[in-house]
Amino acid sequence: MKIAIAGSGALGCGFGYLMHKAGNEVTLIDQWPAHIDAINSKGLTVDFNGEKGTEMIPAVYPEDVKGEFDLVFTFTKSMQLASMLEKIQPILGEDTKVVCLLNGLGHRQTLMQYVKEENILMGTTVWTAGIDAPGEVHFMGKGPVELQNIHPSGEAAAKEVVALLTDAKLNGVYSDNVLFSIWRKACVNGTLNVLCSILDCNIEEFSKTENSREMMTAIIEEFSLAAKTEGVELDVTETVDYLVEVNKTVGPHYPSMHQDLIQNKRPTEVDYLNGAVAKMAEEHNFEAPTCQIITDLIHAKEDLFGIKR
Amino acid sequence: MKIAIAGSGALGCGFGYLMHKAGNEVTLIDQWPAHIDAINSKGLTVDFNGEKGTEMIPAVYPEDVKGEFDLVFTFTKSMQLASMLEKIQPILGEDTKVVCLLNGLGHRQTLMQYVKEENILMGTTVWTAGIDAPGEVHFMGKGPVELQNIHPSGEAAAKEVVALLTDAKLNGVYSDNVLFSIWRKACVNGTLNVLCSILDCNIEEFSKTENSREMMTAIIEEFSLAAKTEGVELDVTETVDYLVEVNKTVGPHYPSMHQDLIQNKRPTEVDYLNGAVAKMAEEHNFEAPTCQIITDLIHAKEDLFGIKR
Repeated sequence: MKIAIAGSGALGCGFGYLMHKAGNEVTLIDQWPAHIDAINSKGLTVDFNGEKGTEMIPAVYPEDVKGEFDLVFTFTKSMQLASMLEKIQPILGEDTKVVCLLNGLGHRQTLMQYVKEENILMGTTVWTAGIDAPGEVHFMGKGPVELQNIHPSGEAAAKEVVALLTDAKLNGVYSDNVLFSIWRKACVNGTLNVLCSILDCNIEEFSKTENSREMMTAIIEEFSLAAKTEGVELDVTETVDYLVEVNKTVGPHYPSMHQDLIQNKRPTEVDYLNGAVAKMAEEHNFEAPTCQIITDLIHAKEDLFGIKR
Repeated sequence: MKIAIAGSGALGCGFGYLMHKAGNEVTLIDQWPAHIDAINSKGLTVDFNGEKGTEMIPAVYPEDVKGEFDLVFTFTKSMQLASMLEKIQPILGEDTKVVCLLNGLGHRQTLMQYVKEENILMGTTVWTAGIDAPGEVHFMGKGPVELQNIHPSGEAAAKEVVALLTDAKLNGVYSDNVLFSIWRKACVNGTLNVLCSILDCNIEEFSKTENSREMMTAIIEEFSLAAKTEGVELDVTETVDYLVEVNKTVGPHYPSMHQDLIQNKRPTEVDYLNGAVAKMAEEHNFEAPTCQIITDLIHAKEDLFGIKR
């Protein structure tokens, strides 16, 4: 299978590496010159659950990628998805399937501006990864990768990709309700990520504050109204119970938005979480004031740190 | 005039000092042993706009104060107002007027549980003060002290206190709409104080963040609904314009809540600002989700700092 990884950061490299190892023809697309040069000259080195390996995989800029592909995985940052899709239009053929495993909300709508609905496969993943140096990443976990077509006619293709992922040790799972999974994950990130970032604390510390449950409930009530506009039912109490359980199991871990904002002074993805809900509220005529002020506070933090967005 | 200062911190001492100098019989009531001992042994030393002086004024614990007073000024922290009024019940006679110049909301309601409405005088002040050592404070500004009766029959008494304040160089002003002034001041504290505390920045830095106006507007919209339940009209746009002007004139100053919470790790008065509005929303059946999450975030910060409340 001819596969492009559109956005070859840590996670994209992990996926590309394993699919290449499994015998697929993979092309890594990225914008970071040092990373592209390193991969093309020395290969892509991946520490996969502690086991290091190197694969020779071509790496190119989005503007330079040629030919048609069977399958494209988008692994950009949320804010770069649209511009990446814009740039790689030439490689998207009549039957090219595009898989999006990004965290956050609104990506399906973005994809639909560039890709036929029949070719869009949405999913979630719990793999984690990090970049150690240009051309070198670590990739951890055991999956799963949940995946589903968003148009009924895409079911066979989705199941084919699930099989391909499983062949590549990426633990593909066909999902009956991937939109629910996406919203469920957004609920985690739209509470723990943003609140720990505003409060500058880890998840365990947050979960011990007296009103943590009330704060999560206020946010999830608005997420639930937004999910309903996409036909997804989120039970508020059940979701908050689930978040409390997540809190308990995760412990003294700083969520990724805290790492982006506080530790690395990078722009956050809040516009694809609480910000997306606030925007949906305007479009669909419900109220989401909590998500709005949360989004504004995160952006204010970005401004105070001098982070450009 | 026989006057008690109920809560003789920096501001209470400043007021007590000037009224004593003007010939009134003043008693300072406080709970801090070192402060009481210092005042009783060495007198109260006040640096009033750069000019130092010492007055011999008796200082006592709330439980020990004897006799009836003509006038009581409450200068406690917001959260201590009720317990102070409880303790000084014996000194509140049939005609004792009680003046409350505290920042924040809900104090009138607290006073009405302990003091006849006819005897309550509400006000605002822009004097500032700080404690330098037990028995020693500095007191700055030139006023004014706005004051008004909350019951029509209290007008003569209010004007008498205004005259007394002016005699004592405290620049008393009889207000036609003191509730408006109180809400106006609460709007300043309920936006700049809380947002600078959550964001850990000064007022100038806050005012430069891109969505500062939107954040203030979201809060003031809820304050406006709450004010309406007390018969006070707050025009949202005009109020936010005023706040933007305040931002411009104040500059790189950390508001008092930032000093309490971030710098000194003390409990904040958020329950008497945004928290009061959120509580009024429940009682009066309007929505105040922004004030609620803001209050929860401030309390979460208190919890994270290990501040007891």
